[in-house]
Amino acid sequence: MSRTPKLGRGVCLVGGAMSKFGMFKGLDYKDLFAQAFLEMLDSVDNGLNPKDIEALYLGNFSSDFFLKQSHLGPVLTDLLGIVPRPAARLEGACASSALAFRAGVQAVASGMYDIVLVGGLEEMSKRSTEEVTEGLAMASSPYEWKTGFTFPGIFATIATAYFERYKASADDLFAVTLKSHENAKLNPKAQFGVTIKELMAQRAEKAKAKSQPVPSWEDERAFLSDPKVNPEIAWPLRLFDCSPISDGACCLLLVAEEIAKGFSDTPVHVAGLGQGSGYPLYLKEDLTQFEATKQAAKEAYAMSGLGPKDIQIAEVHDCFSIAEVIHTEDLGFFAPGEGIKAANEGLTRRGGPKPINTSGGLKCKGHPVGATGVAQVLEIWLQLRGRAGERQVPIDDLRVGAAHNLGGTGGTCTLTILQKKS
Amino acid sequence: MSRTPKLGRGVCLVGGAMSKFGMFKGLDYKDLFAQAFLEMLDSVDNGLNPKDIEALYLGNFSSDFFLKQSHLGPVLTDLLGIVPRPAARLEGACASSALAFRAGVQAVASGMYDIVLVGGLEEMSKRSTEEVTEGLAMASSPYEWKTGFTFPGIFATIATAYFERYKASADDLFAVTLKSHENAKLNPKAQFGVTIKELMAQRAEKAKAKSQPVPSWEDERAFLSDPKVNPEIAWPLRLFDCSPISDGACCLLLVAEEIAKGFSDTPVHVAGLGQGSGYPLYLKEDLTQFEATKQAAKEAYAMSGLGPKDIQIAEVHDCFSIAEVIHTEDLGFFAPGEGIKAANEGLTRRGGPKPINTSGGLKCKGHPVGATGVAQVLEIWLQLRGRAGERQVPIDDLRVGAAHNLGGTGGTCTLTILQKKS
Repeated sequence: MSRTPKLGRGVCLVGGAMSKFGMFKGLDYKDLFAQAFLEMLDSVDNGLNPKDIEALYLGNFSSDFFLKQSHLGPVLTDLLGIVPRPAARLEGACASSALAFRAGVQAVASGMYDIVLVGGLEEMSKRSTEEVTEGLAMASSPYEWKTGFTFPGIFATIATAYFERYKASADDLFAVTLKSHENAKLNPKAQFGVTIKELMAQRAEKAKAKSQPVPSWEDERAFLSDPKVNPEIAWPLRLFDCSPISDGACCLLLVAEEIAKGFSDTPVHVAGLGQGSGYPLYLKEDLTQFEATKQAAKEAYAMSGLGPKDIQIAEVHDCFSIAEVIHTEDLGFFAPGEGIKAANEGLTRRGGPKPINTSGGLKCKGHPVGATGVAQVLEIWLQLRGRAGERQVPIDDLRVGAAHNLGGTGGTCTLTILQKKS
Repeated sequence: MSRTPKLGRGVCLVGGAMSKFGMFKGLDYKDLFAQAFLEMLDSVDNGLNPKDIEALYLGNFSSDFFLKQSHLGPVLTDLLGIVPRPAARLEGACASSALAFRAGVQAVASGMYDIVLVGGLEEMSKRSTEEVTEGLAMASSPYEWKTGFTFPGIFATIATAYFERYKASADDLFAVTLKSHENAKLNPKAQFGVTIKELMAQRAEKAKAKSQPVPSWEDERAFLSDPKVNPEIAWPLRLFDCSPISDGACCLLLVAEEIAKGFSDTPVHVAGLGQGSGYPLYLKEDLTQFEATKQAAKEAYAMSGLGPKDIQIAEVHDCFSIAEVIHTEDLGFFAPGEGIKAANEGLTRRGGPKPINTSGGLKCKGHPVGATGVAQVLEIWLQLRGRAGERQVPIDDLRVGAAHNLGGTGGTCTLTILQKKS
């Protein structure tokens, strides 16, 4: 990077909401997008007339594959009643909607538009698990999936390299999963808003079992150690290391800084944007770090003038538990090899010094891939505004948070830094 | 549109090239993209070090469907040797790479980057014609293709409405096709760089038949009238009204205005950008115009301070001959119903007062859908710089040109206005 990226015009986030994430038999992507959009309208402190939306930037990974429907832009402008306003779809695998967010920010910063809707959506559950696995694998490098790799295998390979170098084991990853369930239990939009114990009871068709207070980690950990509950998916990764198949949508409203106060009493500023690309596995010099995340962090920190110590909370891409651990290192929150220790010591829990994935993360909030990037940004926005409900972090003077999104085998990674200035 | 869109920072086009378009058995999308990229490097007057490229914006319609490979961004940053620079893919059906161009312009105008590569590509010919037809149909509205419509039928419906309203017939469209072949014969990159007579000779396996000078329209028209040469595809549209299945790639180089002279002796400015979305057929009040094109034109004309009379040459989306005719009206070049007369009077020929599709258009240059939008911009750039070779238009003081791109059933339309100021 030869120069510091800067936006010529400030951009603020003044509205946002997500649909419930999950696997929905009776709802399609339009229903979920409408849910998110309508709740987003309600979230704008001073209201928004939808007719004032000048453009839509949409993140979607592959409605082509999942729904045999491409070109979602005009389907959604019609759904929202904003034809002939323009729409563009962005794709970067599981980071698709982080790319839509960046494009929306850049569109406003460029002066082209003042008021932009950023959306993300994916509907995956109508396809079989085998088909979803195939569809997702297409987001890895052609040098990977054509040789038989699918994502659990890819991240298992990465986990193996990490465990070897830093003398850790799969059991050390339990802390990441336990934290995800602990947080998601407080998130009414989460796909798995339950403790592991409750989830087991549901699966045993005791679904009406009364909701329990969050048990101790020790109690919950016992479940994760049981191979019947938590079988190996791709050694050394187990079921509870993996994020689920999900449907869901999310909407965010971006406006130019100079008009932000007209929409929100507490506008949140886009302080830093960063993105990088990465090599396929066979070209990586080191499997225990992601060059794309490092590039994204470098850009976003440079733009914002902030560093990893300034980031008070973060959503970090946890398609697999090992991904969260490594990325907390790549982002500079912890030294290489220290991420797994930090998770085990509880440093990344909601009450800890560096809360990570207060939403429940991809693992428990759910991972409708094209919606994930904007849903991560939404969580930071809610927390910065003190609107995260029961899962609000107990930090005084919370002002800076970040969202990290990954696509493919780290082929695309982004970091977005939000800052509350007022 | 409540305000005039403006870019806070000027953006210039300083390099560009395309691969040959066609159906290639021995080449894949990476080969074609590399061809375009390397020739683009040569096109930069003062040279470019690829390491200076800060980001890639890529237009691609559906490698997911055609190649079972999504997430092309990092595949291409690796191919070009620019990892960890970021890449984003944009999709808007056949207007995908016009959206990539817009996103690239906005990224530079926002201040985020100074030097951006915009690319477009599609590889379609490895799939059967039936599969390609299905894949393309997915870009129409779910209310269209799920009822059995494919694109020839959709544009045949539109043509029928146009003919009814303006008392025209399918024979009137011959002029559009004749012009496309006349222009493409002078374009070495075109898929069908031949006259209709030569094409017939090739098909009759007289491929070595000597290249002929362009025959008169009357001679060529006789071929189009022969139903064996030009059978009905979807009444009233015939074979020669339809653009082909193509593979191809195109690259453009955008830089900030203040550094443009460092790259090019004759930088070309992005003067206007416009985009709109449109309704599916069943909601359109009028099938003989495209609301998305009208919105795109309104935005681009407002931003540039220019009007249809100022546009000296244009590339206009001719997926079907009727589309070119209608869009020359929607863009304000001709009054409603006059577009077909203008084509028949030769006004849109290369030597006429309003040359349209000097490249040969989608019909003859080829239509690798994700590459089409940027290839249209490329043609205008070449013409404005006087580098269009044998097909250079004979206009003194050529300064302003425009590229119009359409996706789906007009769900997404764009207009890009380029201006040479020096």
